[in-house]
Amino acid sequence: MIKVGIVGGTGYTGVELLRLLAMHSEVRVQMVTSRGEAGIKVADMFPNLRGFIDLPFTEPEPEQLAKCDVVFFATPNGTAMQSVPDLLKMGVRVIDLAADFRLKETATWEEWYKVKHACPDLLTDAVYGLPEVNRTAIATARLVANPGCYATAVQLGFIPLLEAGVVDPKSLIADVKSGVSGAGRKAEVGTLMGETGESFKAYNVAGHRHLPEIIQGLNPLSPVPVQLTFVPHLLPMIRGIHATLYATLYEDSALHLQNIFEQRYKDEPFVDVLPAGSHPETRSVRGANVCRIAVHRPQGGNVVVVLAVIDNLVKGAAGQAVQNMNIMCGLAESTGLKIVGLLP
Amino acid sequence: MIKVGIVGGTGYTGVELLRLLAMHSEVRVQMVTSRGEAGIKVADMFPNLRGFIDLPFTEPEPEQLAKCDVVFFATPNGTAMQSVPDLLKMGVRVIDLAADFRLKETATWEEWYKVKHACPDLLTDAVYGLPEVNRTAIATARLVANPGCYATAVQLGFIPLLEAGVVDPKSLIADVKSGVSGAGRKAEVGTLMGETGESFKAYNVAGHRHLPEIIQGLNPLSPVPVQLTFVPHLLPMIRGIHATLYATLYEDSALHLQNIFEQRYKDEPFVDVLPAGSHPETRSVRGANVCRIAVHRPQGGNVVVVLAVIDNLVKGAAGQAVQNMNIMCGLAESTGLKIVGLLP
Amino acid sequence: MIKVGIVGGTGYTGVELLRLLAMHSEVRVQMVTSRGEAGIKVADMFPNLRGFIDLPFTEPEPEQLAKCDVVFFATPNGTAMQSVPDLLKMGVRVIDLAADFRLKETATWEEWYKVKHACPDLLTDAVYGLPEVNRTAIATARLVANPGCYATAVQLGFIPLLEAGVVDPKSLIADVKSGVSGAGRKAEVGTLMGETGESFKAYNVAGHRHLPEIIQGLNPLSPVPVQLTFVPHLLPMIRGIHATLYATLYEDSALHLQNIFEQRYKDEPFVDVLPAGSHPETRSVRGANVCRIAVHRPQGGNVVVVLAVIDNLVKGAAGQAVQNMNIMCGLAESTGLKIVGLLP
Amino acid sequence: MIKVGIVGGTGYTGVELLRLLAMHSEVRVQMVTSRGEAGIKVADMFPNLRGFIDLPFTEPEPEQLAKCDVVFFATPNGTAMQSVPDLLKMGVRVIDLAADFRLKETATWEEWYKVKHACPDLLTDAVYGLPEVNRTAIATARLVANPGCYATAVQLGFIPLLEAGVVDPKSLIADVKSGVSGAGRKAEVGTLMGETGESFKAYNVAGHRHLPEIIQGLNPLSPVPVQLTFVPHLLPMIRGIHATLYATLYEDSALHLQNIFEQRYKDEPFVDVLPAGSHPETRSVRGANVCRIAVHRPQGGNVVVVLAVIDNLVKGAAGQAVQNMNIMCGLAESTGLKIVGLLP
Repeated sequence: MIKVGIVGGTGYTGVELLRLLAMHSEVRVQMVTSRGEAGIKVADMFPNLRGFIDLPFTEPEPEQLAKCDVVFFATPNGTAMQSVPDLLKMGVRVIDLAADFRLKETATWEEWYKVKHACPDLLTDAVYGLPEVNRTAIATARLVANPGCYATAVQLGFIPLLEAGVVDPKSLIADVKSGVSGAGRKAEVGTLMGETGESFKAYNVAGHRHLPEIIQGLNPLSPVPVQLTFVPHLLPMIRGIHATLYATLYEDSALHLQNIFEQRYKDEPFVDVLPAGSHPETRSVRGANVCRIAVHRPQGGNVVVVLAVIDNLVKGAAGQAVQNMNIMCGLAESTGLKIVGLLP
Repeated sequence: MIKVGIVGGTGYTGVELLRLLAMHSEVRVQMVTSRGEAGIKVADMFPNLRGFIDLPFTEPEPEQLAKCDVVFFATPNGTAMQSVPDLLKMGVRVIDLAADFRLKETATWEEWYKVKHACPDLLTDAVYGLPEVNRTAIATARLVANPGCYATAVQLGFIPLLEAGVVDPKSLIADVKSGVSGAGRKAEVGTLMGETGESFKAYNVAGHRHLPEIIQGLNPLSPVPVQLTFVPHLLPMIRGIHATLYATLYEDSALHLQNIFEQRYKDEPFVDVLPAGSHPETRSVRGANVCRIAVHRPQGGNVVVVLAVIDNLVKGAAGQAVQNMNIMCGLAESTGLKIVGLLP
Repeated sequence: MIKVGIVGGTGYTGVELLRLLAMHSEVRVQMVTSRGEAGIKVADMFPNLRGFIDLPFTEPEPEQLAKCDVVFFATPNGTAMQSVPDLLKMGVRVIDLAADFRLKETATWEEWYKVKHACPDLLTDAVYGLPEVNRTAIATARLVANPGCYATAVQLGFIPLLEAGVVDPKSLIADVKSGVSGAGRKAEVGTLMGETGESFKAYNVAGHRHLPEIIQGLNPLSPVPVQLTFVPHLLPMIRGIHATLYATLYEDSALHLQNIFEQRYKDEPFVDVLPAGSHPETRSVRGANVCRIAVHRPQGGNVVVVLAVIDNLVKGAAGQAVQNMNIMCGLAESTGLKIVGLLP
Repeated sequence: MIKVGIVGGTGYTGVELLRLLAMHSEVRVQMVTSRGEAGIKVADMFPNLRGFIDLPFTEPEPEQLAKCDVVFFATPNGTAMQSVPDLLKMGVRVIDLAADFRLKETATWEEWYKVKHACPDLLTDAVYGLPEVNRTAIATARLVANPGCYATAVQLGFIPLLEAGVVDPKSLIADVKSGVSGAGRKAEVGTLMGETGESFKAYNVAGHRHLPEIIQGLNPLSPVPVQLTFVPHLLPMIRGIHATLYATLYEDSALHLQNIFEQRYKDEPFVDVLPAGSHPETRSVRGANVCRIAVHRPQGGNVVVVLAVIDNLVKGAAGQAVQNMNIMCGLAESTGLKIVGLLP
């Protein structure tokens, strides 16, 4: 049994990790930390875990965490980087679900996250945890930076097109929509039900932190730097991301779009290319660790439209983290993740 | 492996059965029938099942169904009773998720369901599939009548009080609220999102079909016939039932209410009595086969208030059906049902 | 033109007051105060008001408020009582939408609101602003305590039964459900969309502050003190309250239930008794200053069921406040309130 | 008083027209027709109209409709064209809220609507009822084709850019999202709450009927035929459209984007250009006849992003129809339409 710890277990990615790990046959959750809730039983805060997780929240003490094989950080941005260096030294392997290790360039990271990075050396060391791209490196990584939710959906949608060289890398548009759980479980007016229910809006059009992460992920696939317009929106629902992606096709390149996607992902356990003409629904992946994708070329024009859906808390966060853990620990990649989405 | 068939797989209880059975280690789904959709792949209609269920819908041919060990009927009321007698004769065991075999009295059944019953003899034969009451009889039953969703929540909430004899059986009130999936997946104006979203109402106050079912279940626990006022309401959400139950306490009987509930359900794997003072949320049981219950006595008065939540499609339908199947087939009762609720 | 001021304009009752007053032909909004947002334009925070309200939020300066004819307090509980005595002395008439002046007994108020009352003398002076009961007193009141949202719906539902003497006053049960806007626009985890969407629960079963308010309102109509069990619930929607009320009928008293309600409210402009057998929906009153009521006697038994719906922000708050203002200022009571509910 | 009739009053645009007309000071609703519901009181079906509309539904008899000054058709596509020619002959002026007269080319209309047009001659005669473009022609029109909901939002968003000549007309992308009321009040599985709640998807990516309507509206503003990729999506909410529009800027053309929008709409009563940097929310226009627009140029790149929101049932249907009626009848254009959006 793999001994795991979770640092910061009171948010939505924390409780989702616990849901998945509680049903994982090869894992024992050793500890769940929370400075604010130490002493409280985890299942008192999240009653869905009653009968599955019998631990209290505890203080994040390094010597205790050091007894784990793998530690997940489900903390706000800027927290993991304070403790990860010490844990790595003690031989613990770390998966950070926040953004602390997602960018390779310190300057870019500090520009977007507005604080000084605590351990910039680790930025190059960390492996970006998108298994569909980095599976081999993840297997031996000490530190995995779990991708952002938008970043997961957008990259999985654009990768086949860029790898196949069929679209202009300077023409990328990502119109993405997310359920409110992506904003976390923080006391804020902006994500109250009264503010976000029965309404829809874009936000951060001037710039969202997943933009540099996506560009960093896509640039290696393109002969020239990609140009991406990225517009996130907030959906009046809880779980789910839908990325609607647009790119300009090079002439005659549209012939085999469906085939390009099917070939690229034919061996991927958690990317599901739908039949031509499909419109994936976010509910089809609710609670499940899968990205469903469809590709369209409306009116036979020169614009390709890719539709990609994930559950932001699963393939966009906790599920992908468990997938990474499986890879790191030499387990079958699907262990604990053969979960059917909850529909309706 | 238990070979199972599902008759009527295009509704919400059908797809939910398939979700649970697809993750059940001891079952092989042999066939899923639908007259209207025969030939279509099940996973084309319900993409959450892609990768798990590779069958097409087929016609409900008796000789094919006869090859199954257990057949679930997830059909509209009045359908199962047409085919069940033949299947039973061929040795198949049947679990009906509709209402065809829930009532014992033919006259009562025909009064509430407005048609003549096709096989009234089977009404007495059928076992009412509430394991918390009928576990032993279910184990050997040929035909199990899976309880209604409201009926499950209301009975589980009242049973401890009536068995303990602490409330006046003539004072029962059940104010129940259900998500819209309880109305099924039928083309009707009344359950459109435009009609049911962002709104709330009672319905069928003059009389709902689960009323006689509940009374039939509670009467044996009471020295006098119970009197129950039952008011169902429609919630602007998809899954979940919340029953708020009221009864008048006999004098001095309130002392051990919490204890009464904890004792009654201490060995039940799927009834979870919450700590005193709790308010169960429907989301804590989303997708999970569990009823969470809390008992209150506001202001120390003579009215007891019981709060009971279930997922109407799981403990209120498909999950309870799988629980019954496990019991009928001699499996551990929790097989395939150790599922953590999806929160948020 | 009546000059009005609003103290505390950044909450949901504040913006709703502004919506109604902006469309009111006899009113000029002079000032809207907010300590936290002073200097910000009201319409920048609430863009629905663009083109209608061109004021900035200002500090709540008494000398400025004193220039108003009527001042509404849309502040948290405990705020109005600090300033109201001074305003009254300066001749301003006040309508408090919070709870500061709703209870007559200082001890009861302080027990439920957990602070010392700043001006207990005014508790007896204040007029409880339920026009269907207190219209005459409201007309000449200096200080009106606008009723709570639950309290409005529950009282309007029970009043006809108690006045007619047809129910046992010791048997009252109010099972009430509210949209989340009733919790206000405060940064709190409990009312996040992620916490309240797609879920349903009861809360404060041990005791809710509207309980003493309702009892105070109903007791004068009963020969003995009423006994009320009051269970509030939180709906996964924004606006709307549905009260489901239960009471035990005295023998033979059920004959004229429909008539009792129709007679009681036949001259009321904002109480609408639906035809027998109706199930009022909250959406039918969305944005409208009306309470819709239906009365039922299920299965001809001895329990009467009353269904009452209001928009908690309108007839349950801002609309009722404007209705009170109209009465106080000698305007036609419906001025500015002839608004059709927004359906769907 | 203008005498109006409504043909087809049982859908969402019908009830919304009635809401607006009931509060319109210069209008008397003479009749509301419905073949299916004739004899039923309108307010029994739509209780929000109780106290405002006291008519029953009646059969659509031409001689009765001929007594009206203006007749609105709120019928499914293909219905109005059967009766409009006769009504026009009898001197009635008509506003069709469906699509029968929106396209100028008969062949294009028949290609997209899949039936033969009953009165193709009227296609050229009809005036496209987008007041921001066609105000003068609307004033004298006998027959107004009220624009589609998507088409309203998309055109209002692109018009300033195309008129100013700052974007490449071959680069247009419209990623649009609509609440489910846009699909109407029809008994269909696809728009059940169980199918559309808590989920999000694109639909009709291969081609949506508003595409030719938009292109027809935009082409006159462009030196070359526009090329538009149009992807509609279904939101898990009832009212509201959000159009996110993308176009490639000609070099150096981005300098005055905000100014271009403000100038274009400075005299428009129902188009509201938000301050630079804004993100309009659909709730800010709920129930209100207004389009709120913001323009962005992310990262100073060559892609302009326009965000436009409307209430699909108001500025996208019934409100715009009333606006057209006001223009046709010589009333002030805002009569009956000075309505503050319902927020929250």
